[in-house]
Amino acid sequence: MTINLIGTGNVAWHLANQLAKIPTCTLQQIAGRSPEKEGDFKSFAGEIVTINALQPATITIIAVSDDVIENVSTLIPYQDTLVVHTSGSITIEAIAQNRKGVFYPLQSFSKNDTIDFTNIPMCIEATTQEDLEILQQLAMLFSTKVYHIDSHQRKQAHLAAVFVNNFTNHCYTIAQELCDTHQIPFELLHALVGKTAQKAIDHSPSEVQTGPAKRNDTKVINEHLNMLQQEDHKSIYQTLTASIIAHYGKEL
Amino acid sequence: MTINLIGTGNVAWHLANQLAKIPTCTLQQIAGRSPEKEGDFKSFAGEIVTINALQPATITIIAVSDDVIENVSTLIPYQDTLVVHTSGSITIEAIAQNRKGVFYPLQSFSKNDTIDFTNIPMCIEATTQEDLEILQQLAMLFSTKVYHIDSHQRKQAHLAAVFVNNFTNHCYTIAQELCDTHQIPFELLHALVGKTAQKAIDHSPSEVQTGPAKRNDTKVINEHLNMLQQEDHKSIYQTLTASIIAHYGKEL
Repeated sequence: MTINLIGTGNVAWHLANQLAKIPTCTLQQIAGRSPEKEGDFKSFAGEIVTINALQPATITIIAVSDDVIENVSTLIPYQDTLVVHTSGSITIEAIAQNRKGVFYPLQSFSKNDTIDFTNIPMCIEATTQEDLEILQQLAMLFSTKVYHIDSHQRKQAHLAAVFVNNFTNHCYTIAQELCDTHQIPFELLHALVGKTAQKAIDHSPSEVQTGPAKRNDTKVINEHLNMLQQEDHKSIYQTLTASIIAHYGKEL
Repeated sequence: MTINLIGTGNVAWHLANQLAKIPTCTLQQIAGRSPEKEGDFKSFAGEIVTINALQPATITIIAVSDDVIENVSTLIPYQDTLVVHTSGSITIEAIAQNRKGVFYPLQSFSKNDTIDFTNIPMCIEATTQEDLEILQQLAMLFSTKVYHIDSHQRKQAHLAAVFVNNFTNHCYTIAQELCDTHQIPFELLHALVGKTAQKAIDHSPSEVQTGPAKRNDTKVINEHLNMLQQEDHKSIYQTLTASIIAHYGKEL
């Protein structure tokens, strides 16, 4: 199986790094518009080429920003091979080629992050059974968790991922700011960060909700609102508290 | 060291369960108003007594709801021994006794939860150095992480814990609802839940923020808002997104 990779960002780097470890895959060429990134990718492919220099491969993976996927796909100088993108929120139809697919690793990729793909869910989609099987083969070389998810479900999963990753991480950031302001080490909260995540994995999160909002403890809620000094922190506290009260009030 | 425990709720149960494992501590008596809980506590103490039947102990731990701590402390039929409560948000002054303290395990305790105290931060406070040392001894029998935190800092830490635990868990709950609505298994997001928490522990959370709000990607943000059907989910999305944009916009 030969792979062409288009893109030189975080996702492209982590995919190239993983592909280099898989003996049954050949990372044939890497294309991108950032020749200054060549150093980062040198160990995976000799040089970064322009898209029009790509030669046909079994699968061409477009790992670029959402807003240029469609345009990039039209620049690929061959037809009749499988072309996939790696985005959570872009439909499969964005690919101009006749054989199209999606290869979406559901994870947040930061720079300098060590990624173990083994447990990362790989969400795949294709328009024919044959192409789905090719993608399935590739996905199983990355991870033990492969899901067939259509474009509609993938968009929803991506939205859910925003709540699970982006929004929880911002809650951590606010907690760290509160700690910093009052000379409390943020490590005091590390065990709770880990435990909260583990409980949500081991149970249904709604079964393990606790705290003043769940108890509708107006006294503590008002005290907390008075303690918060930033208006956006107050708004987040109020909005999430109102939603928790509405959610669990319904259950009574 | 002898311990009296007042309360028969989750925190009291987990404390009793841990105290029963420590050979150098004697759990002398348990007091509470819920004789029907006697079965749950039978292995730790013969019977649940009323508060006025308590005999003096080295430390008396009041593990009851925040709003009755003060009143309960006035009912203890002895003076001149150390009396502590276990609350994150109540000041040390709520204890009526002359020797007062706080013994606050910073963790969220659910029913039927298995608790390993070893890594749970124990926040302790007392009014004299002698009492602080007694509490320090007890705390070190529970955990390797003991923090001297005053009442002001403890309130702030408790507020930060609401963000880290209650609010993130509600974000997980919303993600699960989105998955359920669109026939996506929530386990698809389990790896991301774990990874997000681990990254916040390994790095400063603000360094690893990703997503459409961080990028100020208006197109994806508007698409997500259109996809959300519940008004409270929309409000949470908007409020957190605005705060993330404001936070990282400032940095540019």
